[in-house]
Amino acid sequence: MPAPFFARFTVSGITLRRRHLFHLLFDQRTRSARRVEAFCGLMALLSVIVVFFESALMTRHAPAPPHPGLWLGIEIAFTLFFTLEYLLRLVLSPKPARYAFSFWGILDLATLLPLYVYWLWPEIAVSYLFIWRAMRAVRALRILKLLRFMPSLRLVGEAVSNARHQLILFYAFIAIVMVVAGALMYGIEGGENGFDSLGASVYWAVVTVTTVGYGDLTPHTAAGRVVASLLILIGYSVIAIPTGILSSQMTENLQRRRQARRCIHCRTADHKLDAIYCHHCGAALPRLKR
Amino acid sequence: MPAPFFARFTVSGITLRRRHLFHLLFDQRTRSARRVEAFCGLMALLSVIVVFFESALMTRHAPAPPHPGLWLGIEIAFTLFFTLEYLLRLVLSPKPARYAFSFWGILDLATLLPLYVYWLWPEIAVSYLFIWRAMRAVRALRILKLLRFMPSLRLVGEAVSNARHQLILFYAFIAIVMVVAGALMYGIEGGENGFDSLGASVYWAVVTVTTVGYGDLTPHTAAGRVVASLLILIGYSVIAIPTGILSSQMTENLQRRRQARRCIHCRTADHKLDAIYCHHCGAALPRLKR
Amino acid sequence: MPAPFFARFTVSGITLRRRHLFHLLFDQRTRSARRVEAFCGLMALLSVIVVFFESALMTRHAPAPPHPGLWLGIEIAFTLFFTLEYLLRLVLSPKPARYAFSFWGILDLATLLPLYVYWLWPEIAVSYLFIWRAMRAVRALRILKLLRFMPSLRLVGEAVSNARHQLILFYAFIAIVMVVAGALMYGIEGGENGFDSLGASVYWAVVTVTTVGYGDLTPHTAAGRVVASLLILIGYSVIAIPTGILSSQMTENLQRRRQARRCIHCRTADHKLDAIYCHHCGAALPRLKR
Amino acid sequence: MPAPFFARFTVSGITLRRRHLFHLLFDQRTRSARRVEAFCGLMALLSVIVVFFESALMTRHAPAPPHPGLWLGIEIAFTLFFTLEYLLRLVLSPKPARYAFSFWGILDLATLLPLYVYWLWPEIAVSYLFIWRAMRAVRALRILKLLRFMPSLRLVGEAVSNARHQLILFYAFIAIVMVVAGALMYGIEGGENGFDSLGASVYWAVVTVTTVGYGDLTPHTAAGRVVASLLILIGYSVIAIPTGILSSQMTENLQRRRQARRCIHCRTADHKLDAIYCHHCGAALPRLKR
Repeated sequence: MPAPFFARFTVSGITLRRRHLFHLLFDQRTRSARRVEAFCGLMALLSVIVVFFESALMTRHAPAPPHPGLWLGIEIAFTLFFTLEYLLRLVLSPKPARYAFSFWGILDLATLLPLYVYWLWPEIAVSYLFIWRAMRAVRALRILKLLRFMPSLRLVGEAVSNARHQLILFYAFIAIVMVVAGALMYGIEGGENGFDSLGASVYWAVVTVTTVGYGDLTPHTAAGRVVASLLILIGYSVIAIPTGILSSQMTENLQRRRQARRCIHCRTADHKLDAIYCHHCGAALPRLKR
Repeated sequence: MPAPFFARFTVSGITLRRRHLFHLLFDQRTRSARRVEAFCGLMALLSVIVVFFESALMTRHAPAPPHPGLWLGIEIAFTLFFTLEYLLRLVLSPKPARYAFSFWGILDLATLLPLYVYWLWPEIAVSYLFIWRAMRAVRALRILKLLRFMPSLRLVGEAVSNARHQLILFYAFIAIVMVVAGALMYGIEGGENGFDSLGASVYWAVVTVTTVGYGDLTPHTAAGRVVASLLILIGYSVIAIPTGILSSQMTENLQRRRQARRCIHCRTADHKLDAIYCHHCGAALPRLKR
Repeated sequence: MPAPFFARFTVSGITLRRRHLFHLLFDQRTRSARRVEAFCGLMALLSVIVVFFESALMTRHAPAPPHPGLWLGIEIAFTLFFTLEYLLRLVLSPKPARYAFSFWGILDLATLLPLYVYWLWPEIAVSYLFIWRAMRAVRALRILKLLRFMPSLRLVGEAVSNARHQLILFYAFIAIVMVVAGALMYGIEGGENGFDSLGASVYWAVVTVTTVGYGDLTPHTAAGRVVASLLILIGYSVIAIPTGILSSQMTENLQRRRQARRCIHCRTADHKLDAIYCHHCGAALPRLKR
Repeated sequence: MPAPFFARFTVSGITLRRRHLFHLLFDQRTRSARRVEAFCGLMALLSVIVVFFESALMTRHAPAPPHPGLWLGIEIAFTLFFTLEYLLRLVLSPKPARYAFSFWGILDLATLLPLYVYWLWPEIAVSYLFIWRAMRAVRALRILKLLRFMPSLRLVGEAVSNARHQLILFYAFIAIVMVVAGALMYGIEGGENGFDSLGASVYWAVVTVTTVGYGDLTPHTAAGRVVASLLILIGYSVIAIPTGILSSQMTENLQRRRQARRCIHCRTADHKLDAIYCHHCGAALPRLKR
């Protein structure tokens, strides 16, 4: 942690304290900051759980849940907490503008909005209760922040990054297949079977190729069923390709990492990933970076 | 089997016989105990098959199956058998309390409950016939016990255990995606299309991301269909990740085991997994632990 | 082909000719027999295509297709061909009884039945037209015979055979999960939502775990939706296991075969699977058995 | 680029200029031609997006979108562009006949048709508006042309090509299973449950085995549900096979390419795919062909 050392030479004492607090609270390299992050994630999780309970209590006959004051109070408490956190982050950050316009900064800001929307335009929160509540549930995205620092993300991320050209190729191919199949079904089935716009037909193609198959739009003519069967078989075949690509990249990565672990005494490589001692000379192996 | 040897020195003859019986009946390292286990599993299977037949005989017009006495009799016989087995296990076990509160102990106890519920509160078994019968079918869980000892579980288990960090990361990510997508659909589609609570919306997201796609809840607005298509494509993409993770771990494990088989004469490694003789000097290879 | 040589020493000339004909027509090691097999497969394919056209011509308003005589004539011609083939196989086979009771023998016999059923009990073919026609379409199974001799079957077959213990374990686990989930839903949802027998509930579990998701049976209660979501997530997770098992076994097999190709001059191994010359000394490599 | 050099020696100046233009515009080895190709792909994409907007503006109450003249004008502009491109390709190509009857030539021609159909038979474009619009959306296929030159296609293509025998075997097997299952359901369920022709039954089998599961055709009898469950379990099992085949082939290819990268100084092989220097002697490695 070289930052306090550097901060010692700054002119103003306020800056010194600011930096100190930043490292204590938000610098992911310190243990205390990771705990703060985990606590904020927990609060986001709790606030989402509360919205779920509130929504579940609302029935068809009673459009508003009982005890509206209680739920509003909880919402205010959460918003206060998140506002405090946002302001602290903004004030303490060494580059506030960069934080404010980063993905995580915008997400943190969006977390606060629901209550302020409710205060400024209460008619929105009443008429569009569903949208207002949905805004609050989107807070779950904040938990993604915690996943950023899991070390196992690296292995998956590396495989995806190595295979990116092939994956882009694959998705471009699938997208074209979906558009063409949607267009064919639009021409064959027409409006009376639900395929009333090209968009709806492509929605059908997405639902079909990915093997979801809701069944809200289905072919009713013989020709439509033949085209649908062909599309399904194409989708069924190509689903193996991204899996194959990722499997081979991950196998490759695992082998590479195993062979990269070389005993510093006898130079033997190819140790098991969780080995602690060299299988040839018994010396301690360098630790594996997960 | 050091236990009979150790038992010889115990003070009481009853303890000696108890230990002997325990090893004979329930210690998985003896062949007789494995046979007892297989027989108990068979009884559980039979009792489940009986419940299935009983339920199939019940039609919409006749809520109770014919010959109710016959079915009750069979149920009593099975319960007697399982009660006897449970008592024996409890009495003979060297640590009865540990057994009683272990997962398998609680499961064995749960197996007995349906009949005793029927005797104590017969009105439950009549009014909640479906629940009472479901309790009896849950006995199928006991067959899981038999799978514990299959040696091939180790290879799968090892791969899952090595990849646990990545799998946890994956499921956390999927869970967040599901909650956010459910919230968005709740806001967009609203109550009139079936998305009447956040819970129902997340149920829809689970059914969609996993490509099950029942079609009981489907988007009806254009915006909802766009969000659904995006969610489906995300689900379709990430389904390749756990498969890739497990495939690479299992490939790694298989190679490791192959290279670990080294001829004790000429030190050549890398034999085929089912090889019996060294491919270099012809000496017999050590047996492979499956 | 040692058989004609051996046949030369048999006593009767009929046996000699019989053996000769058998090798010519049905012994898969001769080229002419493989052509006969392919021709019989083609006839089976044609007969299936005819049944499909016949069934497609039948509309809701006209339960019988036009020109019934034409379709019956074609059916008689196919049956005559298959009868002749069956009798020839039976007569020429060195072990007629073994052929008659083998899987393929019974299948060949079943191929003939529809017409004879029509002649003996014409009322069946009229009242149960659907079943009668289905019997004729099952002839498609005969084409499986042709796949038996494709050499690439070996690689897939070897991987499945090596992984059989793990696959059995996997299917046993999935079966237990399905029974338990079906029982839970039977207890929770009850008869009014379509879960009116344990069999129907297990059918629902099969449709759900495998991500087919017809939507004919769906949970309607909140508790049922929670159980369904959990079951779906379990199914989604375990679907990666058999793929991982087969991928790792096939990767292992491919590597083994590559390393098994050793140059007979310089003993260098590890050649590309489609290499023709040794990459180290340039000598011709032994041919790869596909 | 030896072509301009060769063109210098041709007799006619027109041929010289023609060749020059061909290389400049359509020879994929020059950078300018690749840009022309990308621009044409972009125009195809734009024309498809326009058709989607046009179709989305059409509602159930207003069968024609507003401003029909605007949409027709845009269509004329696109058709003029594609006509110009087609004529240029045809005139400049060294082998015009070969281009005209190649897959891409026919596709380029099909791109032009919708407007000429509209001019020659306007009644078609009005009565069969859906089909006419579908023809325009099929232009998306032209974007496939751009994917041809992506280098990562090679790795996927090589794996598919190496595994072609196994994949053919797999699809033949799946096709037979689908026909037999369709026939069984046709016989068991019969016409009253929607299985009113063998074609419809096979459509059901395709939708089921591939785990799409629309739910428009579902089994209603107990026997039908048993057959459907078995078919679903077969489909669920074999879905792992093509994934396993492709994964193993791709793993094999990746390893081969890694081992093929040998340092030209010290002959060490087995470098990481994105390594730039030899990990043993530090010399620059030959570049990897992606």
